[in-house]
Amino acid sequence: MKLATVTHEGRTKAVLVSADSKTVWPLEALLGRPVPDLGSIAGELDGLKAKLKPSGAGLPIASVKIEAPIPRPARNVMCVGKNYHEHAKEFTASGFDSSAASAADAIPTAPIIFTKAPECVIADGADIRYPEGVSDSVDYEAELGLVIGRGGRGISKADAYAHVAGYTIINDVTARDLQGKHKQWFLGKSLDTFCPMGPFLVTADAVEPENLTVKCWVNDELRQDANTRDLIFDIPTLIATISAGITLRPGDVIATGTPVGVGIGFKPPKFLKRGDKVTIEITGLGRLSNKVA
Amino acid sequence: MKLATVTHEGRTKAVLVSADSKTVWPLEALLGRPVPDLGSIAGELDGLKAKLKPSGAGLPIASVKIEAPIPRPARNVMCVGKNYHEHAKEFTASGFDSSAASAADAIPTAPIIFTKAPECVIADGADIRYPEGVSDSVDYEAELGLVIGRGGRGISKADAYAHVAGYTIINDVTARDLQGKHKQWFLGKSLDTFCPMGPFLVTADAVEPENLTVKCWVNDELRQDANTRDLIFDIPTLIATISAGITLRPGDVIATGTPVGVGIGFKPPKFLKRGDKVTIEITGLGRLSNKVA
Repeated sequence: MKLATVTHEGRTKAVLVSADSKTVWPLEALLGRPVPDLGSIAGELDGLKAKLKPSGAGLPIASVKIEAPIPRPARNVMCVGKNYHEHAKEFTASGFDSSAASAADAIPTAPIIFTKAPECVIADGADIRYPEGVSDSVDYEAELGLVIGRGGRGISKADAYAHVAGYTIINDVTARDLQGKHKQWFLGKSLDTFCPMGPFLVTADAVEPENLTVKCWVNDELRQDANTRDLIFDIPTLIATISAGITLRPGDVIATGTPVGVGIGFKPPKFLKRGDKVTIEITGLGRLSNKVA
Repeated sequence: MKLATVTHEGRTKAVLVSADSKTVWPLEALLGRPVPDLGSIAGELDGLKAKLKPSGAGLPIASVKIEAPIPRPARNVMCVGKNYHEHAKEFTASGFDSSAASAADAIPTAPIIFTKAPECVIADGADIRYPEGVSDSVDYEAELGLVIGRGGRGISKADAYAHVAGYTIINDVTARDLQGKHKQWFLGKSLDTFCPMGPFLVTADAVEPENLTVKCWVNDELRQDANTRDLIFDIPTLIATISAGITLRPGDVIATGTPVGVGIGFKPPKFLKRGDKVTIEITGLGRLSNKVA
């Protein structure tokens, strides 16, 4: 089941999206109560699914504005660093990796978790603002994102997938100079507009998260082309690790890490410039496309 | 002016606190509208101050329950790592510092910023929950905390103090094993209950932030005793650095870093145990005291 958050008639609302992505049905009509965004129902999505069936003609998707599925997460987006082998090596070799002293340390032995401020989330089609005067090494990172449904603490690996409401695409935009200079990655990861997310939230039952192709283009050049089966730490491990001491909550967003092919993987690095368009595609999750302006 | 957030008659409310900390006056009575916590008025505090005068007998502070001044920040608490010289050296020497490869890297050349999940905030007097089975190296960090009043992006050092609503005490409780193992510090810093804050928010006009004594006791043993004049990166530098690319918002909380004397600074390390009580005192800001349970 494909869902989205949109703006329609001046209000944001969660909608059901047709398989061909051409038609949407506001959840408020299907459920008989306001549903301003998908974050507000992430925790009860499992129980609501039976009621989420198209009713009537719906609205043409072109008549609404797509927002990020969780337009403003209730707390920082949790992100995983160096979670694909080849990317871990390219990142450490780039000289921007403050987490590893040498190439021998490139592959992490435990998940590396940092956060992005919730306000840097932007929608498919919105502009990534070039941080003039703040960074001159802006990079893209195509990632599978997941949204927590049922919350919990001490979630076992065996139970982990039952806590996932659905999946989306995230571009973990990064200012490489700030990421290196400030050691901890929050600043370089959290510049305003640095978290494109969407366009859809596809419910967990419709996604095979361990076998998804992740592709990323900058303009017409394919830069990343990988499969989530190559994650170093899989989704159950990430959820178990984070929730061991931190209670996960409905609507929490976790970005699972990016594969090889980011800008700093090239020699010389290929940083984003104004006018560049970054497009990410993940099997079954649609396309997330954002221009640098 | 001393303010607090309290629970009274089953509701949380922001209150004015008498100089002797014995009496409180709910702001809802002084302002004629609900004020559920200090976060909700941080952005307008400057303009409201003139109206915040004791009116009537007030309530004995013993009749209310003190909450954290910002009981649930709207996004993660931003924290500064290694921001006092002697602490930076003790931390790097401890072997838990994933941000420095050697003693020569101990003193940071740019502010190190990481975050704590907003839900780990607890009040003065509340218990720090010992994370049984998750960490066996729990440590305290006494810190001056500040709350942003007027928000903004690209705030200059010269203007920075005008964006501070007030100051409080923060205990940046840390699981050292997780902090080291996971390289990025979010996980080791964000365990549930790991952010005691309070008891008061003292408005900026009443605080001399560059000359405050910061003391921390574990049980009866004085462990930390320093002055904020020894910060490596002062408050204007922190605000200018963070806001260069990230729009600061009213109610944002920044913890400015801890001085020398944390548990891992001792040989062998003195980690917190169940039953220990951590008490932090900062000039003019009161005492924040929490037991490990």
